[in-house]
Amino acid sequence: MLLKELRKQVYEANMELPRRNLVTYTWGNVSGIDREQGLFVIKPSGVEYDELRPENLVVMDLAGNKVEGELNPSSDMKSHLVLYNAFPQIGGIVHTHSPYAVGWAQAGEDIPCFGTTHADYFYGPIPCARHLTQEELDEGYELNTGKTIVETFRLRNIDPVAVPAVICHSHGPFTWGKDADQAVYHAVVLEEVAKMALFTRQVNPQAVPAPQRIVNKHYTRKHGPNAYYGQIKG
Amino acid sequence: MLLKELRKQVYEANMELPRRNLVTYTWGNVSGIDREQGLFVIKPSGVEYDELRPENLVVMDLAGNKVEGELNPSSDMKSHLVLYNAFPQIGGIVHTHSPYAVGWAQAGEDIPCFGTTHADYFYGPIPCARHLTQEELDEGYELNTGKTIVETFRLRNIDPVAVPAVICHSHGPFTWGKDADQAVYHAVVLEEVAKMALFTRQVNPQAVPAPQRIVNKHYTRKHGPNAYYGQIKG
Amino acid sequence: MLLKELRKQVYEANMELPRRNLVTYTWGNVSGIDREQGLFVIKPSGVEYDELRPENLVVMDLAGNKVEGELNPSSDMKSHLVLYNAFPQIGGIVHTHSPYAVGWAQAGEDIPCFGTTHADYFYGPIPCARHLTQEELDEGYELNTGKTIVETFRLRNIDPVAVPAVICHSHGPFTWGKDADQAVYHAVVLEEVAKMALFTRQVNPQAVPAPQRIVNKHYTRKHGPNAYYGQIKG
Amino acid sequence: MLLKELRKQVYEANMELPRRNLVTYTWGNVSGIDREQGLFVIKPSGVEYDELRPENLVVMDLAGNKVEGELNPSSDMKSHLVLYNAFPQIGGIVHTHSPYAVGWAQAGEDIPCFGTTHADYFYGPIPCARHLTQEELDEGYELNTGKTIVETFRLRNIDPVAVPAVICHSHGPFTWGKDADQAVYHAVVLEEVAKMALFTRQVNPQAVPAPQRIVNKHYTRKHGPNAYYGQIKG
Repeated sequence: MLLKELRKQVYEANMELPRRNLVTYTWGNVSGIDREQGLFVIKPSGVEYDELRPENLVVMDLAGNKVEGELNPSSDMKSHLVLYNAFPQIGGIVHTHSPYAVGWAQAGEDIPCFGTTHADYFYGPIPCARHLTQEELDEGYELNTGKTIVETFRLRNIDPVAVPAVICHSHGPFTWGKDADQAVYHAVVLEEVAKMALFTRQVNPQAVPAPQRIVNKHYTRKHGPNAYYGQIKG
Repeated sequence: MLLKELRKQVYEANMELPRRNLVTYTWGNVSGIDREQGLFVIKPSGVEYDELRPENLVVMDLAGNKVEGELNPSSDMKSHLVLYNAFPQIGGIVHTHSPYAVGWAQAGEDIPCFGTTHADYFYGPIPCARHLTQEELDEGYELNTGKTIVETFRLRNIDPVAVPAVICHSHGPFTWGKDADQAVYHAVVLEEVAKMALFTRQVNPQAVPAPQRIVNKHYTRKHGPNAYYGQIKG
Repeated sequence: MLLKELRKQVYEANMELPRRNLVTYTWGNVSGIDREQGLFVIKPSGVEYDELRPENLVVMDLAGNKVEGELNPSSDMKSHLVLYNAFPQIGGIVHTHSPYAVGWAQAGEDIPCFGTTHADYFYGPIPCARHLTQEELDEGYELNTGKTIVETFRLRNIDPVAVPAVICHSHGPFTWGKDADQAVYHAVVLEEVAKMALFTRQVNPQAVPAPQRIVNKHYTRKHGPNAYYGQIKG
Repeated sequence: MLLKELRKQVYEANMELPRRNLVTYTWGNVSGIDREQGLFVIKPSGVEYDELRPENLVVMDLAGNKVEGELNPSSDMKSHLVLYNAFPQIGGIVHTHSPYAVGWAQAGEDIPCFGTTHADYFYGPIPCARHLTQEELDEGYELNTGKTIVETFRLRNIDPVAVPAVICHSHGPFTWGKDADQAVYHAVVLEEVAKMALFTRQVNPQAVPAPQRIVNKHYTRKHGPNAYYGQIKG
C-alpha cells in the first residue's frame, strides 16, 4: 500500500474534525500531499467518520488520476487538486461546513480582521471567493471552485501562506497548511475567529477592523524571522 | 406483536433525537410506516426518552385507528396521519421543537436557501405553513396542522420529496424521509441549516438567497439520475 | 432530622440545575415546602453543588425563622418566603441566572409568547418585574424582590399557576411549580423559551407574539379539564 | 525547586481554563505570585494544556528576570509583570481569548453593567483599554499592553480590586484576583457576563445599564464589611 505514513496522518487529521465539532455527518474532508512523489491522499466521498480507516483513503496524482483506492474520492477532490497545483507551498487542505464560517460565506462577505486572535494566524481578512458562473458550473463545479479560490488570491494579491483560508460565497470554508494537521488547526481557528467576528458585529454592527499596526505586530510575533511566540527560540 | 422490525427502527430513530440534542424533555416524536400493511408506528405521548421501549410504541392504521398499544399515541399523531395519506412517497416523519428551526417558525418566515448546505438536502426554501383559523383549531388542531402543511406544498407547488421539511408558524418543524432514519437525518440537517441561516442574517440582515444555478447544481450533485456524491457509482 | 423526604427531593432538584446547565458556580437555588407543617427547605448560601448534601439544607418556617440547619439559608431566602406566603398553590421555587432569561431580564422586557413551546407551559408572556426603589433596597432587598414579584402578578392580574415564572429587571428569573421538581422543570423550559424568543427576534426584530387562539389551544391541550397531552386519560 | 506549592496552585489554575471552555489550543495563561519572595510563576509559551506539568512552569522576579525554568515564559509575561508591580493587592492573573469577552474587546466597547450577575463581581462596567500606538508597539508590545491597562484604571479612577477585569481593544480579556484560583473564577464570570450582555443587546440594542442603586446593593451584598452572601457570618 502506497504512502502508509501519510495515510495515517491524513486519517488522524480527518478524525480530528468531528472531535473539534467542525462537521455534521460527512460534511468535511481532509487531504495531505507527498510533494516528492506528487501524490495526495484524500477522504473518500460520503463515508461516515466512524467507518473511516486509513486504508479507505484514496490516493490521487496531480493530474487528477486515482492511483490507489477502491472508493470514490471526496466529491470536492478537484478543488483540492487545483489548490495543490496552484499553491506549491501547501501540504494539506481541509473543507468543512463549520457553521460560523458558513454564516459569513452565505452572506458573501470577507471575515474582517477584527483582532489579534485572527491576526495571530491570518494576515488580513479571510477573503470570500465569488460565485461560479453558469458556464463554470457546467464545465466542472469542483474544479472551478478551486480555480475561483486561486483567482481570488491572485487578483487580490494575497499570499496563501500568510492567509491560509478562504470562504466560498454561498458555500463554506477551505483552509490549508504545511501539512494535514496544520490545515485542521487552521480550520479550528477559522471557525473560532468567524464566531468572534459575528459577536463583534452583534455588539456593534459598525465595528471596524483592528488597526494595521496591531495586525502587523501580532502576525510577526508568531511568524517570520522575528517570531518570538512559543519555544522556537527557547 | 405487530411490526417488530419497524418498531425497532422507529424506536432507534426516536432515541437519536436526544443524542443529537434536538429535544428537551419529551418535545419530539418520530413515526415510521409499513406501506404494504398500511400501518404506522409512533411514539406514545409524553413518555420520557429514557423510559421509551420498542414495545411502548403505538401502531395506527391510515384511518387513524389504534391497532396495537396500551398507551396514547403522540398528541401530534393526526398530523403524521395526514402527511402519510397525502404524501405516499414518504416512509417516516419527525416533529421536534429544535430551537433554531423554532426561531424561524415563530418569526413566521420561510428559511431562505442561503447556501449549499441547505441545497444539498432541500431544493429551495423551507416553507412556513400558515396559522390555523379558529374554526380549524376547534375542528381539530393536529389534524388541521397536517392539512395546512399539505396545503402549503400544493398551493406553492413544492415537491415534498425535494423539500422534505416544513416549519409551522408559531410552532416548529416537521421533517420526513424515505424512512424514520432519514426523517431524523433531515431533522438534524434542518436545525443546522436554520442555525446557519440565522448566522447569515446576523452578518447581514439584507443577505440574499444563493443563486438558483448554485442551488440546482448542489441539489442534483446529490439527488436524481446524475448524482455523483458518495459511493453510489463507486 | 425534620422533613427527611422533602430534604431529599429538594436536594435532587438542586442537583438538577447544574446537570441542566442552568447554573455557573453557586448561582442558583431551589426550595420546596411542606404545606401541612408550614415549613420549607432551601439550599444554603454559597455552597458549591458538589459539596451539597441533603443534610446541609436549611429548614425555615413561614415567618422566616430558621427551624433547622447549621448553615445560612440562600441569600434569596426571603424572596422564596414572600412567594410561598402570597401564592398558596405553589410547592417549590427556583432561582437561577440562566443566561438567555437573564438577557431578557437585563433588557427589562417581558418575554413575548412567540409560540407553542412557550404556550405549552406559560399562558401568556413571562412578566418582567420592576426595579426596586432606593427605599425598598434599604428596607430589605430580597424581601422586596419577592414583593415586587407578587405586585406584578396582582397588578397585571396574572395567575401564578398559569404563568409559573417571572424575570426581575436587571436580575434574572424565578420559576415555581407544584413541587421542587416541577419548579426546576419550569426553569429548564423558561431558559429554552427565552432562547427561542431571542432567535425569533434575531430573525425579525419586529416579530409579533403568537395569536391568542393558538396560545389558548396549546395551553388547554396540556392543562385544565380538557387536557389530552400525555397519558392522563390513557 | 522553588515555590513548589505555588507551582501546583498555578498549574491547577491553568488546567481549569480548558475544563471551563475558556481556551482553544494554547490561547490562555495563568500566573500566581508569592509577594513575600517577590516571585511569580507563569505558564510557559505555546505549550499544550495536556503536556503542561507543574515543573514546566517558569519562575520570574518582579524585574522581569527568569529565576527558574527551562522554557520561555508566556509571551504575555511582561503584561503580567506590569500588573503585579502596579496592583500590589493582586495575587493571580489570567489572560484568555474567551469568545464573548473578545467580541466586546474587538468592538472596542466597555462591557456595560447590565445586571446583578455582573455587579456581584465587578463594581461597574468592564473597561476597554485603548489601542497601543506605533511607538508603544515598537518599544514593547506586551509591556505596553500592561501599561495601558494600568493607565485605564488610573485615568478612570477604577479600583482594580472592585473591578478585577479589563478587555484590551482588538485583543481580549485579562482578569485577576487575590490568587490564581480567584483570577480564573473571575475569568469564568467575565465570559458569562459578556455573554449575557450580548444577549441583552440582542433583545434591545438600546438597553441601558442597571441603576446604580442596584449595582451598589448587589456588590456590597457580597463584598466589604456588610457582606452577607455565603457562610462568612454563619
